[in-house]
Amino acid sequence: MPTAAERHAMARARRLGAGVLGSTSPNPAVGAVVLAADGTPVGEGATAPPGGPHAEVRALAEAGDRARGGTVVVTLEPCAHTGRTGPCADALLAAGVSRVVVAVPEPTSPAGGGAARLRAAGVEVVLGVEQAEAEDGALGAWLTGVREQRPQVVWKVAGTLDGRVAAADGSSRWVTGREARAAVHRLRATCDAVLVGSGTALTDDPQLTVRDADGVPAGRQPLRVVLDRRGRLPSDARVLDDAAPTLVSAAAGPRELLAELFARDVRRVLLEGGPTLAAAFLRAGLVDEAVVHLAPKLLGGGASLVGDLGITSIGDALTLSVVDVTRLGGDVGIRLRAYRHTGGSRSAESPAATGGS
Amino acid sequence: MPTAAERHAMARARRLGAGVLGSTSPNPAVGAVVLAADGTPVGEGATAPPGGPHAEVRALAEAGDRARGGTVVVTLEPCAHTGRTGPCADALLAAGVSRVVVAVPEPTSPAGGGAARLRAAGVEVVLGVEQAEAEDGALGAWLTGVREQRPQVVWKVAGTLDGRVAAADGSSRWVTGREARAAVHRLRATCDAVLVGSGTALTDDPQLTVRDADGVPAGRQPLRVVLDRRGRLPSDARVLDDAAPTLVSAAAGPRELLAELFARDVRRVLLEGGPTLAAAFLRAGLVDEAVVHLAPKLLGGGASLVGDLGITSIGDALTLSVVDVTRLGGDVGIRLRAYRHTGGSRSAESPAATGGS
Repeated sequence: MPTAAERHAMARARRLGAGVLGSTSPNPAVGAVVLAADGTPVGEGATAPPGGPHAEVRALAEAGDRARGGTVVVTLEPCAHTGRTGPCADALLAAGVSRVVVAVPEPTSPAGGGAARLRAAGVEVVLGVEQAEAEDGALGAWLTGVREQRPQVVWKVAGTLDGRVAAADGSSRWVTGREARAAVHRLRATCDAVLVGSGTALTDDPQLTVRDADGVPAGRQPLRVVLDRRGRLPSDARVLDDAAPTLVSAAAGPRELLAELFARDVRRVLLEGGPTLAAAFLRAGLVDEAVVHLAPKLLGGGASLVGDLGITSIGDALTLSVVDVTRLGGDVGIRLRAYRHTGGSRSAESPAATGGS
Repeated sequence: MPTAAERHAMARARRLGAGVLGSTSPNPAVGAVVLAADGTPVGEGATAPPGGPHAEVRALAEAGDRARGGTVVVTLEPCAHTGRTGPCADALLAAGVSRVVVAVPEPTSPAGGGAARLRAAGVEVVLGVEQAEAEDGALGAWLTGVREQRPQVVWKVAGTLDGRVAAADGSSRWVTGREARAAVHRLRATCDAVLVGSGTALTDDPQLTVRDADGVPAGRQPLRVVLDRRGRLPSDARVLDDAAPTLVSAAAGPRELLAELFARDVRRVLLEGGPTLAAAFLRAGLVDEAVVHLAPKLLGGGASLVGDLGITSIGDALTLSVVDVTRLGGDVGIRLRAYRHTGGSRSAESPAATGGS
């Protein structure tokens, strides 16, 4: 059983992992906290970009000698393999920690075995602490990759109360206000790639970069992706400027496109539209999370949030589950998760968890 | 300046008023709290059904002698006229209170003057304490009647995330879950009338009564109203059963219908659909509040939340303001208010308060 200090440290470790989501792929966004022997937090860390140190190693570096006899609390089981960095399990042993508290057991065979190696050396290891919370958080992207060999897909859409993304004349700037648009930029920053269809690229001509409130671009930019099977994207489209890398894909459909992105180490994609592309992903069961921003407006006509889903009866409605609801200035933000999402082992292993709302 | 105890009592008085909303029309739903000379609450009351005592009188009755030298905190200025009951101002004087704290000054000339009469008798009167909160609350219905000679209109609609109230085949039971449907019954109970168009009456055949979770009807039922200009309502429609009174109106439009209801002492109407009727009210600027229940579902087709509003460009979108957002089981409830609503003097008097979100 984890102590109260360890639970507190685990919540902090999850936040640390979330803080680097979007910068670690193809590696998982892990967070770690080192507690001294008396339970005091003495170090914390999160996964560095690929090639850099893992979370535990950074947390141990901050803790120094105070880690000896202490506890490491970490969202993912420490690795036992040598990849671009040495095994984290060895670093933990070298630091002399006596206990390791883990949320998610390592699901991949090459990296697995960290807990076993630590236990063999006399370190107490607790696995599965607040595992669901960690799986639903920053580790979801990487876990989707491990389990489905595809990136996690987050569908983001901004519409009116009556489900319109644009008015009858096609105008859509701006449906939502400044706070909601700023939230979209923060969301983009957590993703490895941002995806639109050629229709949206033609109609809205978005730049698809991460910018702050003053319009200043972030240092790290997600890959911009346009699905353009018919070569409709004009060469002067803003998405082709030099503000960020761009992939124009002619993939046959969502599954093929995700395979192409996965091969490029993309583990989390933000699907930004439009209704036709969103419908294609939803029909294929390839949306893991949804972020819906609703403006308190009514249009009574215009393009809908999502295109034809092939659903004719209310009983067949595609049903998500609400994760949280927030006010974003004058707008409302709703975060949802697919019932049969693939980011957590609970739904994969337990059909009971996928029941109706 | 009101004291902290008086502010606390005012919040309580607002809740007391809200508790009788739907049972007092054509009178306002007022709440009152009596504080003894030392600030202790010693009595509270709310407006009784028409013909019964007003809030102050009920609160004074509960307080008895402890009201002497004390303070009465009340959401609406006590009346000075004799209607079906005697003037409340006289009751306050008879009880020997030394101070009266009021949220909303009486806006009607026949009843006005309670503050003046009290002051003339040496009672300290403070007007306008948390006035906006009271106007936006239970008094909004009655104030709309005073200012516009029509009932307050609350539009309630339940739809999917993509703004559909029914699937392509017309099926709509149930879009939302049990908690949201229970909230609709609580909302109906705060209204004097519940309104649908003949289309909804034909398609859904709703009973439109107030029932509890077990289906047991409430003792007091709002007037059921069907706008049926073409005489389409069949005689075996459930809305015509004997569970509650029903008005089948052939009014030419929203404004005419509201005039008809106002003449029947209706001060608060729940507009329950469908999309065509809602659009007619919205186009006429006759929706004061909206209660939108959204299920975390996607249909990708089917009837929309609201019909044609004659809006073609995003800049002309009908814009409301969000009052609050709540979780209702698996669904999301959003309460909104029209920017140019008529239930509060702020928007009527101060154009600055009606700016964009």
